[in-house]
Amino acid sequence: MAVVTPRPELVAKLQAAREASLALAQASTVQKNRALEAIAAAIESSVAQIVPANELDLARGKENGLTTGLLDRLMLNEARLAGLAAAVREIIALDDPIGIVVRGRTLPNGLKLSQVRVPFGVVGAIYEARPNVTVDIAALALKSGNAAVLRGGSAAEETNKVLVALIQQALESVGLPGESVQTIDEFGRDGATELMAARGYVDVLIPRGSAGLIETVVSQSKVPVIETGAGVVHVYVDATARKDWAIDIVKNAKVQRPSVCNAAETLLVHQEAADRFLPELLQALRDADVTLHADDRSAEYFPDVVEVTEEDWALEYGSLDLSVKVVQHMDEALAHIRRYSTKHTESIVTEDIANAERFLNEVDAAVVMVNASTRFTDGGEFGFGAEVGISTQKLHARGPMGLPELTSTKWLVRGAGQVRG
Amino acid sequence: MAVVTPRPELVAKLQAAREASLALAQASTVQKNRALEAIAAAIESSVAQIVPANELDLARGKENGLTTGLLDRLMLNEARLAGLAAAVREIIALDDPIGIVVRGRTLPNGLKLSQVRVPFGVVGAIYEARPNVTVDIAALALKSGNAAVLRGGSAAEETNKVLVALIQQALESVGLPGESVQTIDEFGRDGATELMAARGYVDVLIPRGSAGLIETVVSQSKVPVIETGAGVVHVYVDATARKDWAIDIVKNAKVQRPSVCNAAETLLVHQEAADRFLPELLQALRDADVTLHADDRSAEYFPDVVEVTEEDWALEYGSLDLSVKVVQHMDEALAHIRRYSTKHTESIVTEDIANAERFLNEVDAAVVMVNASTRFTDGGEFGFGAEVGISTQKLHARGPMGLPELTSTKWLVRGAGQVRG
Repeated sequence: MAVVTPRPELVAKLQAAREASLALAQASTVQKNRALEAIAAAIESSVAQIVPANELDLARGKENGLTTGLLDRLMLNEARLAGLAAAVREIIALDDPIGIVVRGRTLPNGLKLSQVRVPFGVVGAIYEARPNVTVDIAALALKSGNAAVLRGGSAAEETNKVLVALIQQALESVGLPGESVQTIDEFGRDGATELMAARGYVDVLIPRGSAGLIETVVSQSKVPVIETGAGVVHVYVDATARKDWAIDIVKNAKVQRPSVCNAAETLLVHQEAADRFLPELLQALRDADVTLHADDRSAEYFPDVVEVTEEDWALEYGSLDLSVKVVQHMDEALAHIRRYSTKHTESIVTEDIANAERFLNEVDAAVVMVNASTRFTDGGEFGFGAEVGISTQKLHARGPMGLPELTSTKWLVRGAGQVRG
Repeated sequence: MAVVTPRPELVAKLQAAREASLALAQASTVQKNRALEAIAAAIESSVAQIVPANELDLARGKENGLTTGLLDRLMLNEARLAGLAAAVREIIALDDPIGIVVRGRTLPNGLKLSQVRVPFGVVGAIYEARPNVTVDIAALALKSGNAAVLRGGSAAEETNKVLVALIQQALESVGLPGESVQTIDEFGRDGATELMAARGYVDVLIPRGSAGLIETVVSQSKVPVIETGAGVVHVYVDATARKDWAIDIVKNAKVQRPSVCNAAETLLVHQEAADRFLPELLQALRDADVTLHADDRSAEYFPDVVEVTEEDWALEYGSLDLSVKVVQHMDEALAHIRRYSTKHTESIVTEDIANAERFLNEVDAAVVMVNASTRFTDGGEFGFGAEVGISTQKLHARGPMGLPELTSTKWLVRGAGQVRG
C-alpha cells in the first residue's frame, strides 16, 4: 500500500473549500436560510436541465449493467426533484446549531468561560450513485456552517455536476462563496482515496452507502470519520412479553421497511414465551411474506422455515428474511446480542421491570429499547428534523445524528488581564 | 506498508479487557472509588517494590543514552509516588460521568427518550517513558468505567510491569476484574502497531507524548484516535492594548512554564502599539532570559534579538524562545494565525470590543481568549479537576478533556408497544 497524497488540483479545491468555510462560519442564520431557499428554488426551476443529465447517467448505468435497485436510486424525475426541494426547505425550519452555548461558567479568578458550537470547517462525503445525497449533504453542511466536498461516484457524475453547479449559483446569488459546495468526481476513484488522505484539509469525512464503502473509508481514511454503519438488529421477546406487543413490534421491525438499517434481522425468543405464542408470531411473519431462518427449537413450533446458518446470525439481510432463535434464558439472549450485534439498535419486549432495566444497562448499542419497534431509530422520529445518518461509532456522535452532530465546539475565554500564578 | 493484524496473544488480552469492561460499566461509583483508594494505598505501601524496578529502567536508560530530560520523566522516587497516590485520590473526588442523562424527551407517540453517558468500553493509550501516565490513565479510565490497555514504552517496562500488577491486585481486592488494566509492553514496538490496527477490539486510542508519537498514531491508527496535539500558540497585542496587561500576559504566557503546550510561541504586535511599548515589553522578556526571534520591524525597536526564520513561525519551541512580529493591522495578525496556528490556544490583548469579538469569532482554535494568558488552557484551571489531555482535533472533544470526554452516550427508549406507522 503506497502512501497516498492528494494531487495539487484536489488540494486547490480543498483550499478553496477552506476559504469558503471561513465565510460560512460567519454567515448569519438568515443568510444561510436564504441560500437554502435559493437552492430549493433552483432545483424546482431546473428540472429541464437536471433530468437530461440524469438520463445520461441512467443510460450509462444500464450499459454498465447496474442493478435495477441501483438504477432506481440513481433516477431523478420531476416528482423526486420536488421532494428534494421540499427536503431542503425542511432544513430551513431547523434550528441553527452554530453559536449555541453548550456550557459556561465564571472561574474563581474572574475568567468568563463559554463553550460554543462552531462548524467543523470542511466536511467531506463519499457516497455512491445517489444524487439526492448531493443535495441533502450540501444543505445540511450549509445550515451547520460547513463547506462540503463531495465524491458522489462516477455512476451519478453527470447529474451531480449539474446539481453542484446549481447549488453554487444559488450560493453566489445570496452572497456566499460558490466553493462552499464542490464535487471531486472528476478525479475518479483515486480522488476518493486522496480525499481520505487529506488530513488537515478536511475536518471530517462521512461515508454513506454500502457496508463495503463504509469499511473502505473507515480502514483507509487518515481524516477523522463518522461511521454510519450497518444494522444487525435484534428483538428479544422475554418470558413475560405481552403477546400483542411482541407480535406488533416484531412484525413492524421486520416488515415495515426491510431494506433500512433499523429493521430487525434476528428474533430471539425466551423458551417460556415460545409455547405461548411462537406459532402465532411466526405465522404472522409468514403471512407478511417473511422467510424465516430458524434454529431447531423454533422449527419445532413452526416447520415452515429455512435452517439458519452461522453466517445468517451476522447478516444484515435488508430483505424480508429473519433469523429466529429460541433461547434458554435472558443471559443467552444477551450473549447472542453481544456476539452478533453491530451496536445499532436492540429491543426487548417484556413485562418484567428488572429485565427491562438490565437490558437497557447491559446492551451496548447506539439505541436500546424496551417495548418499542426498532424502526424508531431515526433522526426524524427522534425529533431532530433531519438526519445526517445513524452513527454506529462511539466517538463524537452515537445514534441518529442531527445538525449539532455536524459541528464542533470552541472555548471562549474573556479576561481582564489575568495571568496564571 | 503491509496490512497489520493484532497477534492472537494481543487479541486475547483485548478480549479480556472487553470482558472486564462489561463489569466496569456496571460498577457503582462507590465501588470504583474503592478501587481508586486501593490503588492509591498500594502505590504508597509499595515504594520498596516500585523504586527498584524503576532503577532497572533508569540504569538501562542511561546505557541506552536517554537524555537527562527523559531520565527525569522516567524517574520515580518516594516523593513522586506520594504525588501519584494523591493524584489518584483527587480522581475519587470527581463526579462520576457514567449514567448522567445528557438530554431526553417524551416523543408525541409516548416513547420516552433519554441519552445517557456510558463508558467507551476499552480505551487504549500509547505513551513514552512516563510511568506516571500508567497510573494516571488507569485511574481516569477506571473512574469513567473503561478498561485500559496500555503501551507505556520499553524504556519504562520494568516500572510499568510492577505498577500494573499493583493496580490489578487493587482492583481484585474490591471485586473488580484485574484485566480492567493491562499492559502490552511485552509485545514491544510491534505491539503498539498492532494495537492501532485493533479496530473493534479497542474503542478509542489516546496517544500521549511527543509530536512524532502523536503523528505516528494519528496517521497509522484504524482505531478512532483522540489527538492531543502540539501548541504553536500566539498572543496578539492589538493597537489599543493596555500596556500593563500586555506585558503581564505575554510574559506569563511565555515564561511561567515554557515547556508545555499552552505556552506562547509567537508574539504579534499591531504597529500602532509597537511604538508605545514594544521596547519595554521586549526588555521585560529579555530580563526573563527569553531569546527573541524577531522580524525586521520588531528589531527596529529592540536590536537584542535573533533574526526570525520562516521555520520559526511554525515551531513549538517548548523553551524560552519567542518569535516576534509587528503587523500592519488585525487582518495581518489573523492571517498569520490562520497560517501557523496548530489550533490549540490563541489570545488577543485589546481594549477594542469590536476587535475582541472579531478575534473570538474568527480564530479557529480549541480555546480563544481575550485579555488572558494562554496558560489558562488547562483542565484543572477550567475546573475539570483532572485532565485527560488537551484535544486539538474537532471530533468528539476539543480543548481540555475531563472525565466526560472519556465517555460515549447511548439512547434509551422506553415504550409501551409502539410501532411505526
